[in-house]
Amino acid sequence: MTIASLGRGTSGPCFDVPPEVEALRARVAAFVADELAPREGLLTEPAGVPWSAVQELRSRAREAGIYGPHIPRAWGGLGLDMRSVAVLFEEAGTSLLGPLAINGAAPDEGNMHLLEVVATPQQKETYLRPLVAGEVRSCFAMTEPAPGAGSDPRMLRTRARRDGDGWVLDGHKWYITGADGAAFAIVMARTSDSDDGRGATMFLVDAETPGFAVVRHIRSLDQTFLGGHCEVRLEGCRVGPEAVLGEVDEGFRYAQVRLAPARLTHCMRWLGIARRSLEIAAGWALDRHSEGKPLGEHQMVQAMLADSRIDLHAARLMIWHAAWVLDSGGSAREETSIAKVFVAEAVGRVVDRAIQICGALGVSEHLPLGLFYREVRPFRIYDGASEVHRASIARRFLRAVARHRN
Amino acid sequence: MTIASLGRGTSGPCFDVPPEVEALRARVAAFVADELAPREGLLTEPAGVPWSAVQELRSRAREAGIYGPHIPRAWGGLGLDMRSVAVLFEEAGTSLLGPLAINGAAPDEGNMHLLEVVATPQQKETYLRPLVAGEVRSCFAMTEPAPGAGSDPRMLRTRARRDGDGWVLDGHKWYITGADGAAFAIVMARTSDSDDGRGATMFLVDAETPGFAVVRHIRSLDQTFLGGHCEVRLEGCRVGPEAVLGEVDEGFRYAQVRLAPARLTHCMRWLGIARRSLEIAAGWALDRHSEGKPLGEHQMVQAMLADSRIDLHAARLMIWHAAWVLDSGGSAREETSIAKVFVAEAVGRVVDRAIQICGALGVSEHLPLGLFYREVRPFRIYDGASEVHRASIARRFLRAVARHRN
Amino acid sequence: MTIASLGRGTSGPCFDVPPEVEALRARVAAFVADELAPREGLLTEPAGVPWSAVQELRSRAREAGIYGPHIPRAWGGLGLDMRSVAVLFEEAGTSLLGPLAINGAAPDEGNMHLLEVVATPQQKETYLRPLVAGEVRSCFAMTEPAPGAGSDPRMLRTRARRDGDGWVLDGHKWYITGADGAAFAIVMARTSDSDDGRGATMFLVDAETPGFAVVRHIRSLDQTFLGGHCEVRLEGCRVGPEAVLGEVDEGFRYAQVRLAPARLTHCMRWLGIARRSLEIAAGWALDRHSEGKPLGEHQMVQAMLADSRIDLHAARLMIWHAAWVLDSGGSAREETSIAKVFVAEAVGRVVDRAIQICGALGVSEHLPLGLFYREVRPFRIYDGASEVHRASIARRFLRAVARHRN
Amino acid sequence: MTIASLGRGTSGPCFDVPPEVEALRARVAAFVADELAPREGLLTEPAGVPWSAVQELRSRAREAGIYGPHIPRAWGGLGLDMRSVAVLFEEAGTSLLGPLAINGAAPDEGNMHLLEVVATPQQKETYLRPLVAGEVRSCFAMTEPAPGAGSDPRMLRTRARRDGDGWVLDGHKWYITGADGAAFAIVMARTSDSDDGRGATMFLVDAETPGFAVVRHIRSLDQTFLGGHCEVRLEGCRVGPEAVLGEVDEGFRYAQVRLAPARLTHCMRWLGIARRSLEIAAGWALDRHSEGKPLGEHQMVQAMLADSRIDLHAARLMIWHAAWVLDSGGSAREETSIAKVFVAEAVGRVVDRAIQICGALGVSEHLPLGLFYREVRPFRIYDGASEVHRASIARRFLRAVARHRN
Repeated sequence: MTIASLGRGTSGPCFDVPPEVEALRARVAAFVADELAPREGLLTEPAGVPWSAVQELRSRAREAGIYGPHIPRAWGGLGLDMRSVAVLFEEAGTSLLGPLAINGAAPDEGNMHLLEVVATPQQKETYLRPLVAGEVRSCFAMTEPAPGAGSDPRMLRTRARRDGDGWVLDGHKWYITGADGAAFAIVMARTSDSDDGRGATMFLVDAETPGFAVVRHIRSLDQTFLGGHCEVRLEGCRVGPEAVLGEVDEGFRYAQVRLAPARLTHCMRWLGIARRSLEIAAGWALDRHSEGKPLGEHQMVQAMLADSRIDLHAARLMIWHAAWVLDSGGSAREETSIAKVFVAEAVGRVVDRAIQICGALGVSEHLPLGLFYREVRPFRIYDGASEVHRASIARRFLRAVARHRN
Repeated sequence: MTIASLGRGTSGPCFDVPPEVEALRARVAAFVADELAPREGLLTEPAGVPWSAVQELRSRAREAGIYGPHIPRAWGGLGLDMRSVAVLFEEAGTSLLGPLAINGAAPDEGNMHLLEVVATPQQKETYLRPLVAGEVRSCFAMTEPAPGAGSDPRMLRTRARRDGDGWVLDGHKWYITGADGAAFAIVMARTSDSDDGRGATMFLVDAETPGFAVVRHIRSLDQTFLGGHCEVRLEGCRVGPEAVLGEVDEGFRYAQVRLAPARLTHCMRWLGIARRSLEIAAGWALDRHSEGKPLGEHQMVQAMLADSRIDLHAARLMIWHAAWVLDSGGSAREETSIAKVFVAEAVGRVVDRAIQICGALGVSEHLPLGLFYREVRPFRIYDGASEVHRASIARRFLRAVARHRN
Repeated sequence: MTIASLGRGTSGPCFDVPPEVEALRARVAAFVADELAPREGLLTEPAGVPWSAVQELRSRAREAGIYGPHIPRAWGGLGLDMRSVAVLFEEAGTSLLGPLAINGAAPDEGNMHLLEVVATPQQKETYLRPLVAGEVRSCFAMTEPAPGAGSDPRMLRTRARRDGDGWVLDGHKWYITGADGAAFAIVMARTSDSDDGRGATMFLVDAETPGFAVVRHIRSLDQTFLGGHCEVRLEGCRVGPEAVLGEVDEGFRYAQVRLAPARLTHCMRWLGIARRSLEIAAGWALDRHSEGKPLGEHQMVQAMLADSRIDLHAARLMIWHAAWVLDSGGSAREETSIAKVFVAEAVGRVVDRAIQICGALGVSEHLPLGLFYREVRPFRIYDGASEVHRASIARRFLRAVARHRN
Repeated sequence: MTIASLGRGTSGPCFDVPPEVEALRARVAAFVADELAPREGLLTEPAGVPWSAVQELRSRAREAGIYGPHIPRAWGGLGLDMRSVAVLFEEAGTSLLGPLAINGAAPDEGNMHLLEVVATPQQKETYLRPLVAGEVRSCFAMTEPAPGAGSDPRMLRTRARRDGDGWVLDGHKWYITGADGAAFAIVMARTSDSDDGRGATMFLVDAETPGFAVVRHIRSLDQTFLGGHCEVRLEGCRVGPEAVLGEVDEGFRYAQVRLAPARLTHCMRWLGIARRSLEIAAGWALDRHSEGKPLGEHQMVQAMLADSRIDLHAARLMIWHAAWVLDSGGSAREETSIAKVFVAEAVGRVVDRAIQICGALGVSEHLPLGLFYREVRPFRIYDGASEVHRASIARRFLRAVARHRN
């Protein structure tokens, strides 16, 4: 290295959002204001947002040129990298309708990524094409009721046994988001009993396959996921050899392929919700008076606003950083894990503070904060509970320190 | 003082629950288990718990000898002091149906106390008697939409002007809990513009009085208050001289009479909810396994359980202490303010941790934790937001320190 | 039970401080103001508070009638119960010299209690009498350097082997508070290898016994313990049969006898420090102006003051409660464990907030807050780290819940 | 914008550290390990690190090619931009000797920046040249004892009145870091009484100027700043016209020029301390056993390690981001304010957790954690207390929201 090569002009970490991404972001912001904000009543309809309304929103998003930021251009999307997706998903996430409109909601968005990476060309035609087109929905069927797979996926009990050239699946899945109305499920089933982190296989199962049944909706604190959270039974559910996604016994590995980016896009979307919550609270702090001055001039309110600003700033930087790692070809297991823990908790704090600032109005239907409060709480549990991530982060760090000492 | 009078036997702070109160508590616990637990589905009925069901529960509570712990014996209740009420309300509070069953729910319970202290004998016959009998409900109409009375009651805008020997009330009330279906309202209205903390008057207004109208329900994050949270309009609402509760212009003072004990009974009830949440979480921690051992043997779960134990312990002691001050004849403004801030926040933490321990099950309908989560959040806002109480606590303390220095 | 026996007069939890205890408390407060406050410079002398100064303070405390609140009257103290001790130790604790003056500092205070309960009459004459008289100091030698006994006492490695009718002790003790200058040590040594929580024995070892050596001082963040924290070597240290304290192999049980009340008196003393810190901060908040008004009118300062008020209130109630359990004959393992975790953390928060309110002055030598900050930090580690207590609290609770279900 | 210009290759936020900076970082790391770690005993010498030792360290740093990362190349430093400085200051900050060695410690480092931006060429020759050469030290004299300038600089009371072509300064400065031994001071004094945020002027005052006197050291919780924190008296201190730094009455504006980057370099240095603390704790968690397994396998320890990892990650990203804003020519008042609040608190948490993990060892002299604990606490107060920054952040945000609505 020549010191001479250094100087005030040395490049390094950079936080520019490219102008074309910024322009797209502005489009998304306008779309949220013009198209989504007036329709948010859809979110509290007893049966959930109607599928026809989703189709309509997607059609408008296409017209606005903002459909599918994460979908490859060859498949009809904008084909952006994760850093740009981060910007657009945050903006779309300021409305709970936003991710639906741009077809970037969970679990479909994660499934698209998984299929893109792992599926065969034929499987892509059959499953990925209608999914990215926004014509169908899908679900990811891993979780099981106790004592099955939950925070610890290795407790998987659903089994697939070979039957001729195909497989027969039997098991009980639980809390399968989006299952009701999904055209197909990616089902995780045990295919061998090895203890080495292998032994599970992913299967693509059409919803109409005999033996595959969505048996009930499980009502939850959150309520806006399309298709709800469902209980699914697999009883003698026979699928052909073409149903195997990727290689047999490699399901746990693919689950990781899916999970790291999927939890990051979750972070992006929830960041939008949190930002909107803070903006609502700031508006109220400007307007509402108490003891002779606006709420916003009371320091306890200022402290809440400042803490939320700080939380959002840290959350956004962590998301961008993890996105950069993914764009650079890294697995980002560590970075997305860290981001997930922090963002899930920060988003909860920001929404909670917004409610507190708005007082009784904040818990009333006049503001969406109560709804947001319900939606964001489970995020500390979904995609790996905070405790599970913390344990992983610590173990990984301790291993690194141990290696470094030797 | 003779040192000789001291010794190991010196009396001092004591935490015994008298055996007769303990016996009553056990009865309440049995009642919750036998009568209420099986009926908790009532709580999530779309229109709220039906009035007929409440009547039925009260009838059974009477049979069980647990009706009205706080209601004077002359009025048909158990006539207990606040410390004993604390024990029974906590126990009843382990079910959201409990306070309804024993007629100890807000806002009726606070109104009973206010009427008992301030009302004339005739007003007591007319309003208190059917209320303590559990035959009617009531509401307390103080809060107004911005820019009216909220956290700062002095911003009161509803006016009562003299009209012959009576009064005419005009104003707009908002978030009036229990208004729909209430037989009468205690309405706070401005009767003069003094700036000395006086100038408001309380009026007893029958629900059918012309000019008094419940115009709509405001849906809220919490959903189990009987009669919801309502918007109320007073337009040329004429009442006679007998409607004045207490003295003219002394409404703010009476509001304090009502608020200190009312916020404490809130604490008692919510403590029950928190305790139940912790017990549910502990049960799950014993049963559910992860990584080869019960959740309860994972230290991060232990930390949450321990923190909740500590929170409940502190909360209970603060409630008992404030109850003792009230029983001793004190106003307990300071003690109930401190208890309210701590208990409201502690209860929120305990329910939140219980959800986290139970994972996806915790936010699902299979456990009542999601419901509790919604119910307890507003408690940090109702009865004075935490910020308002903190400011009062600090000011009172600074005044005491300043006095002590002079 | 007859309901008739109930009524507004029902007794229950009570928080009265008896007038004679209150009178003693006032004496202690006056003593702190008049005798100790002017001498606090002693605390920062490089070699620690001189023993002669301690003797002088004890003599004055005796004259003031406040010496030895916890010491039985037969042994020359006030013979108060734990609840009264709580009141007086808190008051004395407002100066770091207070506990020394009344001979209620650690580790002597805990050792007195242990000797009182476990020692033979002869041992009491030899060791307890001069200790309660304040003529000598003592230490408790349990902790060892890694991999020996620390948070987990069962890792004890110091050994005592029988030698004739006596014993020979060999081992390495570490962080032995007060060892330098102590007249004797209570040494914990392994006498058998049972795995059932037995196998350790306590020995009374005179400081001049050959083979017992205080080898060095370990400087620590805290700096005001008399005799420091020391490293002690036991090498062929021979003691007679009369050195055994209590029964052979029962040392772990006696350690519990000592620990529960000892950690509670720690809480009492630190509560005093925290209260004084808050009072200092309040004084500054009244005097110092910023942006045109006293600091105390800025809400962020109010929030800190209020949170500290709440913390102190909860801490005091927990201490009183645990003291009541001890006075009632309970072991109070659970209650002192809960109190210890909460109080240690609350005291840390209160001192930290006081510093923050006082700004640069708060960390300067002009206020004792920086010293307090150093002194209180280790309290979350000493007497069982918070983590160890949390695990115990959770396990105990889970066992109770499991029992209750069966 | 052409959507066609987008694609997976879109650039955006980037977190690469350039290889030449990474190489420098590695040199600094080696320097800390080889040169500084063995000399850290200097930090606890009663009179502070000797100036001769500092000179020696600087000479070695020059040889190692790591001297003055922030000093322009023309002035003998490495001339790096702030992002690169961030990387090197963090690394140097892992030893409290590091910033001294590379001449990047407060307050000199901030003074260099101020002089570089504001001073005349002649002033630079006189004051900046020996300062960047590491031959002299300096101080920044703004703070005053109450009721003067503290958190609120507008309360400035030190006055400068014109006297011929020069000025005479009178005032009392307090907590002036590094004053003892400084060759010169930058003194802030009031030159007019305007209320518009102007009216203060900066003066360059040689230490030997008659009327300028360092009257005493103020001992503080932290203890490693060269030259301590001092009280300074200005009594009839006459300086010539060439002593004015920048323009008359513009001192508050220059203070901002100094403060934004100066608080950011503080963050960089403390981040190093925090990282080292975490690494020490991790090492202990690997080595020390409790209950039959390494501490690091206990989840409560894992939770602390993970939270510290998350804190450090967020802190570093915020620092890099603010550095990028400065490198891009922004004032970074907002970004450095946010970073300062978060980093100061995060660093405190990380050091505190490290102590907790290490137990009694953590507060003992055997580890530097107790020293770090003392050093980092004031950082939440210095350079603007957290409360002051929070209020500014909130006000700025509210203004932005208000603007956006109009």
